[in-house]
Amino acid sequence: MKPIQVGLLGIGTVGSGTFNVLQRNQEEIRRRAGRGIQITMVADLDVARARAVVGEGVTVVGDAREVIANPDIDIVIELIGGYGIAKALVMEAISAGKHVVTANKALLAVHGTEIFAAASARGVIVAFEAAVAGGIPIIKALREGLSANHIEWIAGIINGTTNFILSEMRDKGLDFEVVLKEAQRLGYAEADPTFDIEGVDAAHKATIMSAIAFGIPVQFHKAYVEGITRLSATDIRYAEQLGYRIKLLGITKRAPRGIELRVHPSLVPAKRLLANVEGAMNAVVVHGDAVGTTLYYGKGAGSEPTASAVIADLVDVTRLHTADPHHRVPHLAFQPDALSDLPVLPMSEVVTSYYLRLRVADEAGVLAKVTGVLALNGISIDAVLQREADEVGGEGATSTDLIILTHDTREGTMDKVLAELQALPTVLSPIVRIRKEELR
Amino acid sequence: MKPIQVGLLGIGTVGSGTFNVLQRNQEEIRRRAGRGIQITMVADLDVARARAVVGEGVTVVGDAREVIANPDIDIVIELIGGYGIAKALVMEAISAGKHVVTANKALLAVHGTEIFAAASARGVIVAFEAAVAGGIPIIKALREGLSANHIEWIAGIINGTTNFILSEMRDKGLDFEVVLKEAQRLGYAEADPTFDIEGVDAAHKATIMSAIAFGIPVQFHKAYVEGITRLSATDIRYAEQLGYRIKLLGITKRAPRGIELRVHPSLVPAKRLLANVEGAMNAVVVHGDAVGTTLYYGKGAGSEPTASAVIADLVDVTRLHTADPHHRVPHLAFQPDALSDLPVLPMSEVVTSYYLRLRVADEAGVLAKVTGVLALNGISIDAVLQREADEVGGEGATSTDLIILTHDTREGTMDKVLAELQALPTVLSPIVRIRKEELR
Repeated sequence: MKPIQVGLLGIGTVGSGTFNVLQRNQEEIRRRAGRGIQITMVADLDVARARAVVGEGVTVVGDAREVIANPDIDIVIELIGGYGIAKALVMEAISAGKHVVTANKALLAVHGTEIFAAASARGVIVAFEAAVAGGIPIIKALREGLSANHIEWIAGIINGTTNFILSEMRDKGLDFEVVLKEAQRLGYAEADPTFDIEGVDAAHKATIMSAIAFGIPVQFHKAYVEGITRLSATDIRYAEQLGYRIKLLGITKRAPRGIELRVHPSLVPAKRLLANVEGAMNAVVVHGDAVGTTLYYGKGAGSEPTASAVIADLVDVTRLHTADPHHRVPHLAFQPDALSDLPVLPMSEVVTSYYLRLRVADEAGVLAKVTGVLALNGISIDAVLQREADEVGGEGATSTDLIILTHDTREGTMDKVLAELQALPTVLSPIVRIRKEELR
Repeated sequence: MKPIQVGLLGIGTVGSGTFNVLQRNQEEIRRRAGRGIQITMVADLDVARARAVVGEGVTVVGDAREVIANPDIDIVIELIGGYGIAKALVMEAISAGKHVVTANKALLAVHGTEIFAAASARGVIVAFEAAVAGGIPIIKALREGLSANHIEWIAGIINGTTNFILSEMRDKGLDFEVVLKEAQRLGYAEADPTFDIEGVDAAHKATIMSAIAFGIPVQFHKAYVEGITRLSATDIRYAEQLGYRIKLLGITKRAPRGIELRVHPSLVPAKRLLANVEGAMNAVVVHGDAVGTTLYYGKGAGSEPTASAVIADLVDVTRLHTADPHHRVPHLAFQPDALSDLPVLPMSEVVTSYYLRLRVADEAGVLAKVTGVLALNGISIDAVLQREADEVGGEGATSTDLIILTHDTREGTMDKVLAELQALPTVLSPIVRIRKEELR
């Protein structure tokens, strides 16, 4: 049987990795897939660079549309990224009856519904294992491996840049800005790191996982997104003393009235495996009603780890594109006509627990006043840590850090309480609030 | 479309869990699979117990062959266990053109080659996610998620009973026999725990993973199998002091001259996630050339976690049985006509590093003599720990523990060296040898 012919759009880091791994392991991949899988055509604006990667024997063009127009191409890999031309090309490839493999999380988190509908109508597969957590086969686990389960929640470290920064901040006791510069120097953070450090990249991935887990359309615009730029070494240290580590988590959870979808720094008990995921590594915890807690760990980015996921999708398409299109694995895990209309909850409706740090005047009655406000609003306290007072200012006035861990409460209630606490004359600086997840 | 009809053979712990989860989540599973999936017929020797589990509306019979003979049944689940009647029934179900889902690791590790060949010839699927690591979708990860990779090694905690025992031994400083009794009382170990504590169960699972990872036939009889019955609290403590934990690992590795396939206690660096998998939990680390190191963690046994895997297989068969049988996911990950003839290496050919504990006379020159024997045989030393001498016997003679960590060496060489060391008059007790895996 003739090999599956693949056209590659965009041959940067991941594209080169895909080409190289497919070539290096071609014999083994053919033995697995039952057919050879070959990249026979590559489109890149930089034709010379593309040619340098693929050598002779592969057609290299500057115009992606030539690849889509080629009737010999069975599968198109989109590795251009972004929402613009990438979207147009994916839609055109689908129209042309090509199966599509993409690593483009931004595209799918925002336009996935439209893209998957077009693919279903045309009877082609859009595969995207590489879009979430790089080489970790988490899409497959959620969509197929855990299909027996009523999924209850997912919490993941799904951005390597921020996890590297947080690991370094903890290890070395340094503040965010210092470590960011170091991460940029080492190539762990980009020159413009906004999408990573502000949580946008993690939110794209969380949005995709949420849709697959709960059978809802992708709704990136409803995700709550908070990055790590305001975290201080002080809070990382206090969290440690209380038995927690701070991680940037992508969380999606089934709540009584809808779905939580949020990205923010979170305290995680230090004894959880997830808390011990260090450096640029990724890990996703999935809790299902039958299976309980499962965890998936690996490299979430990089040339060959991401290529591993891209090629797994090529093998899947090769093995399974002949299955009845109405029953084979649906793009979002659930059949397109059986999605749920569960709403994504606004952040004020989210229920979680909190770490609060208040800089307070070191005088009698402060603790009673603060805890009184919490009690009046029905927020119960899990732990309190009060540091010894230290001198501030020149007047002999002293102040101290008061750290409070709360039990579960509604975010809307916490917002109101924080405003009240902030207004107390004995509260001297802006209150730090970090959410806490027990992940039981 | 009418629901997929499933016949269940054997409704014990896992069977009940499968029936219950399938019923509880039927609506969600139907939305995922695009068709209902119903257990319509159950066979169990204990008809009354079966009836009590499934209630009315399901046909209950005492003879499994009635299920296989029923033309309305699409998929047969085999949860009887063992090599005897289970094998006959699986083969008969295949002959009758039924797809089969089984959790029977012993059967597949020993007779898998014959069973998969029969299934391929008849064009049916034999699915077995539940056979390895319970609810963790590790078969799917290996066979599909990592299909781009040249797999280099797998190391897994794949027996919950022994991991529970080792965790308790470490936590409480107790010896094996004491903890085993406690585990039996708590239901973590069976009345006859042989298959678990002697490593046989883990070796069944390692055999299956090895076949899928490297594209070789299942060859349980070639696995090296060593359990945890001879481990002492002393060695767990020394390992801890050296920065290691002791775990029962199922290991399979690609070596220059063949495949290593072995189950035995292993020192693992305490900082590895795998070393921090506690209690009855399972975890499998897979290292591929493209993806690097990945890890999969969850419950490896129990009614509903195992049911999660059984039902995932039902959904897979429902979604994908219409795919071209010559290309859909092969039973052993590789096409049946493309298996490898790489040999499974005898244990003497395995290369690994070692922890050695020698009880030696506390006299000058002992360390020099012992390390001299190692050096002469080309074994280099990674670390030495010598405890202060303590009194033994009534003659005023003193002895001491000498712990040595070695670098990589061939097991055959180590066997010879241990015989030499054991013959030294200053070595007072049988030498303890535990293998060590860095898992980098």
